[in-house]
Amino acid sequence: MQNFTYCTPTKIIFGKGVIETLPATLEKYGKRVLFTYGGGSIKKIGLYEKVKELLKDFEVIELPGIQPNPKYNPSVLAGVRLCKEHKVDVILSVGGGSVLDCSKAIASGACYEGETWDLITGKARITRALPIVDIITLAATGSEYDNGGVISRTETNDKVGFGSPYTFPKVSFLDPEYTYSVSKWQTAAGTADAMNHIMEQYFCADTTLLNDGMCESALKALMVMGKRAYDNPEDYQARAEMMFNCTLACNGIYSCGNSSSGWPCHGIEHALSGYYDITHGVGLAIITPRWMRHILNENTLERFVKYGVNVFGIDPTLDKYEIASRAIDATIDFFRSLNIPMHLKEVGIDESRLSEMAHHVTVNEGLENAYAPLKEQDILEILTASL
Amino acid sequence: MQNFTYCTPTKIIFGKGVIETLPATLEKYGKRVLFTYGGGSIKKIGLYEKVKELLKDFEVIELPGIQPNPKYNPSVLAGVRLCKEHKVDVILSVGGGSVLDCSKAIASGACYEGETWDLITGKARITRALPIVDIITLAATGSEYDNGGVISRTETNDKVGFGSPYTFPKVSFLDPEYTYSVSKWQTAAGTADAMNHIMEQYFCADTTLLNDGMCESALKALMVMGKRAYDNPEDYQARAEMMFNCTLACNGIYSCGNSSSGWPCHGIEHALSGYYDITHGVGLAIITPRWMRHILNENTLERFVKYGVNVFGIDPTLDKYEIASRAIDATIDFFRSLNIPMHLKEVGIDESRLSEMAHHVTVNEGLENAYAPLKEQDILEILTASL
Repeated sequence: MQNFTYCTPTKIIFGKGVIETLPATLEKYGKRVLFTYGGGSIKKIGLYEKVKELLKDFEVIELPGIQPNPKYNPSVLAGVRLCKEHKVDVILSVGGGSVLDCSKAIASGACYEGETWDLITGKARITRALPIVDIITLAATGSEYDNGGVISRTETNDKVGFGSPYTFPKVSFLDPEYTYSVSKWQTAAGTADAMNHIMEQYFCADTTLLNDGMCESALKALMVMGKRAYDNPEDYQARAEMMFNCTLACNGIYSCGNSSSGWPCHGIEHALSGYYDITHGVGLAIITPRWMRHILNENTLERFVKYGVNVFGIDPTLDKYEIASRAIDATIDFFRSLNIPMHLKEVGIDESRLSEMAHHVTVNEGLENAYAPLKEQDILEILTASL
Repeated sequence: MQNFTYCTPTKIIFGKGVIETLPATLEKYGKRVLFTYGGGSIKKIGLYEKVKELLKDFEVIELPGIQPNPKYNPSVLAGVRLCKEHKVDVILSVGGGSVLDCSKAIASGACYEGETWDLITGKARITRALPIVDIITLAATGSEYDNGGVISRTETNDKVGFGSPYTFPKVSFLDPEYTYSVSKWQTAAGTADAMNHIMEQYFCADTTLLNDGMCESALKALMVMGKRAYDNPEDYQARAEMMFNCTLACNGIYSCGNSSSGWPCHGIEHALSGYYDITHGVGLAIITPRWMRHILNENTLERFVKYGVNVFGIDPTLDKYEIASRAIDATIDFFRSLNIPMHLKEVGIDESRLSEMAHHVTVNEGLENAYAPLKEQDILEILTASL
């Protein structure tokens, strides 16, 4: 077991109707609120109006239009400018993980005199941030319970992760009913995203029995509840269980004491959505099984056997490579059961830029230090197998 | 799934040698430190000297002699007095859960003008507390990652739980090597204590798939690692995995969204150690299987079947009552494998005060609202079966 430090100070307020207490929460931080949100889905479900009503005694500055794979320009830059101009006290992020990731970058940039991009790339250190409160409307990224975010810069195809002890949300409100209207496509993508978060903590060295058991349990529960939510969008129990499962999946509690896997599927997927702006969870679903097949060898075999037996109930008396192979097939079958396209060509990505992306990943993601080390040629082979 | 609020802001610093950073941590809170500890085991393992050396630039006030089932008088009262006299900035608790529970009571009382006992019983509310940093030397209670404590008042046989958002430790240092010298008796008791913490979150209504899986995984891992640590006290991996397992077991993350069980075994055990000052984990091990047999009925059967199949691998095709019965037997067998005495008479408790204790529990613990409601007669029957 490796040494580690773990701390997640965020307060989770979960369940039906919980946002009624939003004003009391925000008030602790001040009266000037930057209200960030996305493309308008919160208007369709009535949440925009609800929030405005709850904030009637606050000074509210709005930053709408934050896109999936949130963009440095214009969203982060605009948010930082608004915070400085209006001396914002607290950011209220309403939407999915993209809005919240963007809000974390804004919160950091608002307390910094230089270029916010330097905070995102790590060239400068985040030493302060505005407090962030969020209402999550999409079960997927777990951004509501971690301190990280990912920001894209279109002109350079960069998609860069950042984080700091100052960018944990103070309070995350999670009402599963606000996820009833999430489309089947996004429900499937969210399930795949969170599943991969768990896998990135499971396929690594020095795991503990407890971590392995928690990851396996989380994967099994997520597959059941993700599928139920996909089939019946207003199944409260399924939406709720899926939501909290996603919340815990990216925060590191499942890998305390493990060696880091290097998060290889995320490293590769960041190029896909950086270059092509595809849905992150769909990109992960396509990459994951091809990465699995690529790294399956005598060093990794036991992990795959454990995964196959404990997550999919595969007969443990079979040949070990047979178990591993069936486990990878079962992974694909599950994603297919959610109608996720399982080939890059189906989401508009052809072979033309695979080499360029493989090079980009090699330079930017450091996957030669991953659980199963990946060089440029490995990454290209995984991308090619994903076509 | 029930609505819930969850927040654990404590920072865990885990692993070999981590206490070297203690001075930098304490410094954030001030220079005047109340150093609390127990009966001297930290002197035997060299930790006392180590802490004194690390604190050479601090003003250190010592409160030694905190006992298991920590006492309001003299320990809590003495600690509060010392904090007020010396204007203590921060409490450093070094030892097991009893020292830390006591330190939480002291931290609360130090910021209160009235009787500290009123804060413990809930007659007055804890609204402030001194910051607490701890070094844990015994894997058991999980007090290092929760905001609760239990304090005994000898003259009234009271053993009362308390807690508040202000009594989370700021930082918990966990170095598994400091648990090498923990006796077999305490290793067994710690394992049983944490196992029961998990069971108190598992045997309840409205559980989620994720919570069930996490509890089952935690129980299985704890039994493996607890036994390994019992058999080979210097098995680092076992001590480390057992330690973090205990840390997570009492903090509520395994039951977010479940209905509360009412923690019935703890309610009953509080009388045992309140009246007889026995080792808490041993009391729990004795009570748990008798409580299980007592509450097994058609309402609770499915829980026991799940427990038996998923924790002990009992054949799921057997008759359900047979599975449940075997699961309870397996629970006893595991405790016996750690040489825990499984009868009250073996720890010096005879029938003379069972009725009095059953009445005390009925009045003070509210178990008529437990997962399986317990009236005075039920409690008496469980105690009698435990003789």
